[in-house]
Amino acid sequence: MTVSAPTKLWDKGYELDPRIEKFEIGDDTVYDNRLILPDVLGSIAHAAGLAKVGLLDGDVFWKLHGGLAQIADLAEDGEFSIEPGDEDVHTKIENWLTQQLGEAGKRIHTGRSRNDQVLVDLRLYTREAVLPVYGAVLEACDALLQMATEYRMLPMPGYTHMQRAMLSSVGVWAGAYLEALLDDLDLLDAAVKLNDQNPLGSAASYGVALPLDRQYVSDLLGFGKVQNNVLYAQNARGKFEVAIVQALTQVALGFSKLAQDIMLFTTSEYNFFSIDDSLLTGSSIMPQKRNLGAVELLRAKGQVMLSYQQQMLGVLIGLPAGYNMDFQETKRPFMEALDLIENSAAVVALTVSRLVPNENKMAEACSPELFATDAAYDLVLQGVPFRDAYKQVALSLDTLENIDPEAHLVKHTHQGTSGDLRLGVSSDKIAHRKEVLAKRAAELDAIKTGLLTGSAAGLPLPSPGPTNGSLPQPAGDASDR
Amino acid sequence: MTVSAPTKLWDKGYELDPRIEKFEIGDDTVYDNRLILPDVLGSIAHAAGLAKVGLLDGDVFWKLHGGLAQIADLAEDGEFSIEPGDEDVHTKIENWLTQQLGEAGKRIHTGRSRNDQVLVDLRLYTREAVLPVYGAVLEACDALLQMATEYRMLPMPGYTHMQRAMLSSVGVWAGAYLEALLDDLDLLDAAVKLNDQNPLGSAASYGVALPLDRQYVSDLLGFGKVQNNVLYAQNARGKFEVAIVQALTQVALGFSKLAQDIMLFTTSEYNFFSIDDSLLTGSSIMPQKRNLGAVELLRAKGQVMLSYQQQMLGVLIGLPAGYNMDFQETKRPFMEALDLIENSAAVVALTVSRLVPNENKMAEACSPELFATDAAYDLVLQGVPFRDAYKQVALSLDTLENIDPEAHLVKHTHQGTSGDLRLGVSSDKIAHRKEVLAKRAAELDAIKTGLLTGSAAGLPLPSPGPTNGSLPQPAGDASDR
Amino acid sequence: MTVSAPTKLWDKGYELDPRIEKFEIGDDTVYDNRLILPDVLGSIAHAAGLAKVGLLDGDVFWKLHGGLAQIADLAEDGEFSIEPGDEDVHTKIENWLTQQLGEAGKRIHTGRSRNDQVLVDLRLYTREAVLPVYGAVLEACDALLQMATEYRMLPMPGYTHMQRAMLSSVGVWAGAYLEALLDDLDLLDAAVKLNDQNPLGSAASYGVALPLDRQYVSDLLGFGKVQNNVLYAQNARGKFEVAIVQALTQVALGFSKLAQDIMLFTTSEYNFFSIDDSLLTGSSIMPQKRNLGAVELLRAKGQVMLSYQQQMLGVLIGLPAGYNMDFQETKRPFMEALDLIENSAAVVALTVSRLVPNENKMAEACSPELFATDAAYDLVLQGVPFRDAYKQVALSLDTLENIDPEAHLVKHTHQGTSGDLRLGVSSDKIAHRKEVLAKRAAELDAIKTGLLTGSAAGLPLPSPGPTNGSLPQPAGDASDR
Amino acid sequence: MTVSAPTKLWDKGYELDPRIEKFEIGDDTVYDNRLILPDVLGSIAHAAGLAKVGLLDGDVFWKLHGGLAQIADLAEDGEFSIEPGDEDVHTKIENWLTQQLGEAGKRIHTGRSRNDQVLVDLRLYTREAVLPVYGAVLEACDALLQMATEYRMLPMPGYTHMQRAMLSSVGVWAGAYLEALLDDLDLLDAAVKLNDQNPLGSAASYGVALPLDRQYVSDLLGFGKVQNNVLYAQNARGKFEVAIVQALTQVALGFSKLAQDIMLFTTSEYNFFSIDDSLLTGSSIMPQKRNLGAVELLRAKGQVMLSYQQQMLGVLIGLPAGYNMDFQETKRPFMEALDLIENSAAVVALTVSRLVPNENKMAEACSPELFATDAAYDLVLQGVPFRDAYKQVALSLDTLENIDPEAHLVKHTHQGTSGDLRLGVSSDKIAHRKEVLAKRAAELDAIKTGLLTGSAAGLPLPSPGPTNGSLPQPAGDASDR
Repeated sequence: MTVSAPTKLWDKGYELDPRIEKFEIGDDTVYDNRLILPDVLGSIAHAAGLAKVGLLDGDVFWKLHGGLAQIADLAEDGEFSIEPGDEDVHTKIENWLTQQLGEAGKRIHTGRSRNDQVLVDLRLYTREAVLPVYGAVLEACDALLQMATEYRMLPMPGYTHMQRAMLSSVGVWAGAYLEALLDDLDLLDAAVKLNDQNPLGSAASYGVALPLDRQYVSDLLGFGKVQNNVLYAQNARGKFEVAIVQALTQVALGFSKLAQDIMLFTTSEYNFFSIDDSLLTGSSIMPQKRNLGAVELLRAKGQVMLSYQQQMLGVLIGLPAGYNMDFQETKRPFMEALDLIENSAAVVALTVSRLVPNENKMAEACSPELFATDAAYDLVLQGVPFRDAYKQVALSLDTLENIDPEAHLVKHTHQGTSGDLRLGVSSDKIAHRKEVLAKRAAELDAIKTGLLTGSAAGLPLPSPGPTNGSLPQPAGDASDR
Repeated sequence: MTVSAPTKLWDKGYELDPRIEKFEIGDDTVYDNRLILPDVLGSIAHAAGLAKVGLLDGDVFWKLHGGLAQIADLAEDGEFSIEPGDEDVHTKIENWLTQQLGEAGKRIHTGRSRNDQVLVDLRLYTREAVLPVYGAVLEACDALLQMATEYRMLPMPGYTHMQRAMLSSVGVWAGAYLEALLDDLDLLDAAVKLNDQNPLGSAASYGVALPLDRQYVSDLLGFGKVQNNVLYAQNARGKFEVAIVQALTQVALGFSKLAQDIMLFTTSEYNFFSIDDSLLTGSSIMPQKRNLGAVELLRAKGQVMLSYQQQMLGVLIGLPAGYNMDFQETKRPFMEALDLIENSAAVVALTVSRLVPNENKMAEACSPELFATDAAYDLVLQGVPFRDAYKQVALSLDTLENIDPEAHLVKHTHQGTSGDLRLGVSSDKIAHRKEVLAKRAAELDAIKTGLLTGSAAGLPLPSPGPTNGSLPQPAGDASDR
Repeated sequence: MTVSAPTKLWDKGYELDPRIEKFEIGDDTVYDNRLILPDVLGSIAHAAGLAKVGLLDGDVFWKLHGGLAQIADLAEDGEFSIEPGDEDVHTKIENWLTQQLGEAGKRIHTGRSRNDQVLVDLRLYTREAVLPVYGAVLEACDALLQMATEYRMLPMPGYTHMQRAMLSSVGVWAGAYLEALLDDLDLLDAAVKLNDQNPLGSAASYGVALPLDRQYVSDLLGFGKVQNNVLYAQNARGKFEVAIVQALTQVALGFSKLAQDIMLFTTSEYNFFSIDDSLLTGSSIMPQKRNLGAVELLRAKGQVMLSYQQQMLGVLIGLPAGYNMDFQETKRPFMEALDLIENSAAVVALTVSRLVPNENKMAEACSPELFATDAAYDLVLQGVPFRDAYKQVALSLDTLENIDPEAHLVKHTHQGTSGDLRLGVSSDKIAHRKEVLAKRAAELDAIKTGLLTGSAAGLPLPSPGPTNGSLPQPAGDASDR
Repeated sequence: MTVSAPTKLWDKGYELDPRIEKFEIGDDTVYDNRLILPDVLGSIAHAAGLAKVGLLDGDVFWKLHGGLAQIADLAEDGEFSIEPGDEDVHTKIENWLTQQLGEAGKRIHTGRSRNDQVLVDLRLYTREAVLPVYGAVLEACDALLQMATEYRMLPMPGYTHMQRAMLSSVGVWAGAYLEALLDDLDLLDAAVKLNDQNPLGSAASYGVALPLDRQYVSDLLGFGKVQNNVLYAQNARGKFEVAIVQALTQVALGFSKLAQDIMLFTTSEYNFFSIDDSLLTGSSIMPQKRNLGAVELLRAKGQVMLSYQQQMLGVLIGLPAGYNMDFQETKRPFMEALDLIENSAAVVALTVSRLVPNENKMAEACSPELFATDAAYDLVLQGVPFRDAYKQVALSLDTLENIDPEAHLVKHTHQGTSGDLRLGVSSDKIAHRKEVLAKRAAELDAIKTGLLTGSAAGLPLPSPGPTNGSLPQPAGDASDR
């Protein structure tokens, strides 16, 4: 559908220089398309809140509700979108409402600003957008768990300083990445919880002199709580998002390390893993090349995450309080960071599930020096102090003999080694997280459906008809003006 | 006391090029001094663990315990320290034990590596070092709370885009910073919890083929749990520390914003706050200058935090699994980041407590345009749709009249504005956090005292005398070798 | 025009997993569209080089030339572009040539790899893309020069530590930014010169065992020199680009500082400059708001530049030698950085040209304390040692009298102050740079035209007909194989 | 020698809160010790400039000269240093002069501020401190040149995507790093040239109303030119330093890449190089370990450089014009960045000179797939189009035969490959740079000696005795005051 040329909400009869306008909007509108549904939901709740305190008639509310629900439908069908030339999602929606509904559209912005509107949009967007991120990371966990389980006792040299160190197993290697990811999700939980605060009602940054019921609006939207101080709500723009990006950067750390390991272990020189053709790209010049392009990119994407985090923090730091236009530059890196981790996690899951250990190659690499420490421990068990045993072995390294790694691996019995890897703990955590995730997805769906269909259970939307409550008296009547 | 020239633990009869040695150690030893007590505590627990599983005689354990406790005493008196020329804290301590106790010293390193030793040192250091950080941030919270309480209803212009926007109050302004800090501490909690895992037993990165009892050692040290996978323990070096730095970067965001606000509001042009002489520095050339040097630095330190975070993440990302020497470069920025936030928080507390609002200046700055939105709301309350009201006011801005800000402020009644600022919630949070903090400090003191005096309650240290358990059989007996 | 589904150049009969393919390509193809013309030019020169050494018949060369020139035309008309689903610009072009020209297309990739192809594309792109950047920065210089000239003697308070310091002038203020930009361009020159090296012939990273004439190809493309070592050519991917970004970051430093100053000086509290409505945006809630959104973004874009620089350096650092897929992640930030500075410079030019000083406001702000140092100098001129004079004034600040700033400004006579601002030097530099820029643009146009029309002056392209030179003998004949 | 407790230059009878003072100074004084000699030289020139324009008697000048020369001597003997508790180097020196010389000391600060004083100190420091950096990088170049020369034709597999790609040589590998460093020094030249501007006379940021002769002072100090605009001089604080750090970051890129290659090529799996024991460190647990700790740190230090660059740029960006205290946070990362590169270059030189290729291991790694492209070229030379030849070979990779790499390497004849590596060009550049470096060192020594001994050739220092020029009239006489 066509929407006629948008008017700016703040139109005062002068024209913005088009070069300035282009500079300000940039490609921001691309990212605003992700905020259409959040903006609709936030607008329904805001309008309901206005009606609840008597600032909007019930009839007007339901008219707006109909229009907003229609926008959600149109957007789902690809028929409502933010295009270059549009100022932003908020303007587009208000203008559409006014064009379609007349005066009702002109009433919806009472008691709010685009500043708190974009905040609530981002919070609603975020709480949805993190779900597939959790999901993808859990898929990666599953792949790592499966690998660790299958190859728990498959001997593999362990490296420190990139030099052969001591005997390890494929299970220990895969399990290390698995446990890191599960810990990372705990950090992500804390950031996601921070995000679960309703900023609506903070308006431009300082609230309004109208008797808004912020708790009601917050409950309608299913937020954990109202973000209390109105200025804090605005100061939190970008801050909450970057808290999530910081947690995701921890995930990226693990992915990047895993990528570096895979790159190393799939060289001709190591050759510890065979890798499926479906993961490999070729060269335009060299007929023999089988490159792990995606794994290289996985490594590089870690750095990209660092630059997203840097950009967001850099933009925010040192800004004075209240809304600043600079905030806009935190939107793209935030959304791209979520995408990046979701996509990277999928690549990790796929890659790990298609890595096949070359047992012989690993066994060959379990050369005698890997067991030098064990030789020292043999002496220790005969009563030699460790430091003496160490030196004795160090000076006779050439006498170290070949050891069968499989036979030796069974001696790794203490917690956290292949003999006691406790993969069940991780498995339980994954299962529990999947349940929580499904439940949360259902919750959010119910909230969306409730708002869009007007049947929010427990929290009735305003009744049609004129408001029952009395409109607040015009402030203009106050004697002090 | 003098300790003779240290030998390297890995001495094999060749000399490291002194230029290489200097490059490797750099100023790292400076920071190792903070790890002396943690290293002592970790060593006591490790030795107890060895004794528990029969790898150390009870007598030897108590000998080592005596030496280690003595090092703790010497260090407290400034008589044991890591100096340029020493390799690191671990080497210094092992060498000292061997020099003082003979063979017992040579036994302590059984079943561990400096890799897991430095990990446990850092975890123990961190759990102590965050306490004064929490404390200092809570002091800053107190100062902000007091300011917000005292000036909750003192009118102040609110700014967006650095332009006058709507009426606000000093209470709202101070309260915004307060609530941000309290949220930040929730993020810090998650990172601190992550840190609360015992890495001992992971050895070089792959555990050892000895029957260590990692849970016992973990309990002795009072860790929340064992960090299970041994390779993950090593991969977590720097990772856990940077998780804490990421949370502290959120604190720095707030401090930097506050500093920018204070710089702005104390210019001659704003003049919203008088500031105590004790916070001001002068110029060498201009007799009149009264500069807020510390506040400027507070602003700059935010960027310093970003670079610490960047350095740590940059060093870590893309490293292959297992211990890598690169980790060393995460130590200094981590320790300095903790110091930076502790010191910055103290400056915030001091500065906020000495800022005195210039009521008249703020009132003067509450010029009519600050109430333009309210003029539109007056029309709204008379039934005019908001967007029309907005335009009507926008086109007649010159008719806006002076408003008494104090009288108007009372209309800011909804949650999060000056009329409903809910400072009690923050006050309760501060009080609760102080309690938790004091309790945690006591807990940690008890653990330290227990380990140093050998009276760990509940978890008895090994008995003197030869071990009761039978020593594990030498692995050299195994038929497969 | 429609090109049928592209085949991968390295097709070996297996399918890349589509999720991997999507991850690898991402939005990279968007940026590849900027490389179509460079790829055409590089391909013409490469083919000519092949013909020169007898690896291609003259007829085949001219057939390829015709096809490549046609691609250039189609691309100009928007009828040849890289779309999602295409692997990259190189593949698209080779496939098109093969489809249109048959066997000739299959010959063009002899002796090259996409690795050196993308390098030469980026170098050619860069040398063109920097021209409008220089141009836009010079426009900003012009605007600053005009402001500095017009208001050279207009008194303005000078600030240090954001506090009033000493008398300055609008001319000094604008001139400071002007001189910084001109210095920045010197740094940019060095980076641009670095970029002026022909990488073709480095192939995958190690050259080829064919007798390429790299100098001839370099001359055809008008490069300053051949980038000699083939592996260095590949290691320079991203490195040369980030050298340019580093220089542009210096420009961004200046823009960001200027933006911060403008934000400050256009607050109601300072009110030093009036700003044209065409630069201002409004609020959706506050009818009175006049926000300098573009200037705020200018400030934020400085941080965005830092993150581009960080991303590029982060991706590059620590990579092993030779081509790595990670390089791809340097392309987008590089291209966006060039755009960002070009657009920012245009906004600076526009904004500066529309700033109008409020002389009265600045004069009012020239309060007595601004002249405290001068009071000390009066004493100095009477023989009092400066430090004593300083203290004397410091202790009697309240006796400082009002000074007429205009009358005082004439005493600022030494070099670099308003009385001796030497704007002519900057003016001459701008003029000289504009000449150099125009000349360079003409040079590059001539090279492009020469290559596309086949009339490269001085450096004849190969003659039609079979090659005159004898083809090198097949290496297969060599006795050692 | 003992200097009594310093007084602050701006002392006005109130006390700075000691916590604020500590926060402001931090460890900044440590770095100020490097600025003692620069401060002395700048002060001599400044005082001479004052005398030249009649603001100082010749006798007073020579008294100050004597005191300053004495400070230089004392500092050289370690008897004058900046200690914790001192405010800064400038204060310490002025106070010392006043204590030793009485009134003369109180006159030296006429017409300057610590703001331009620290600027000139840093510029003088920088121009000296870059010399050993150049020197150390040239030593690294020498080592790489020697390796490239000795092993120019030693076959080595070339890698892309960390997979075996095509035949290369040790000479190509070492030469690639060599050429990169030489290019980096060109970038460094541009930044060093930028630094060569005299900022003295810019005072606090806005010059002074005294007739300073900035050109004379600039010439005395041997600067390339006066930095003209006084505000630009101040805005350049940190900016010029970070320009140098940006160039050095390019050097760090190369070092980090080299380190990664060495780490890879010295694994047991590659084993391409033997490495001298003097470069290796051991493990505390594993008797066999031979770790390249310094090379790992070289890799990590690249990231440290990025964080220094980030810190400096982050602190600077967005600051308003004029001196801001934030600048202080650029000093430490700048000085440490210079040290880091100097030390890293020394480690590179040492390490490269002690790497010994394992010829057999490299030859073994030259497996048949390395020659797949050459097999395709054989077909090309028989007339098969390259793309067809490529596919033909790709589908019959198992028929590739063993090739003797040495025999094949001679076919790498085009520019930039082992057959035409043009090391002479690099060798000439190194030689030329060493000459330039020695000349520059001599120049700077002559300037220093001239200033300290009072015998500046060509540019006579002021004569003893009262000034010949007439003192400027007190500004107090002006009718407008």
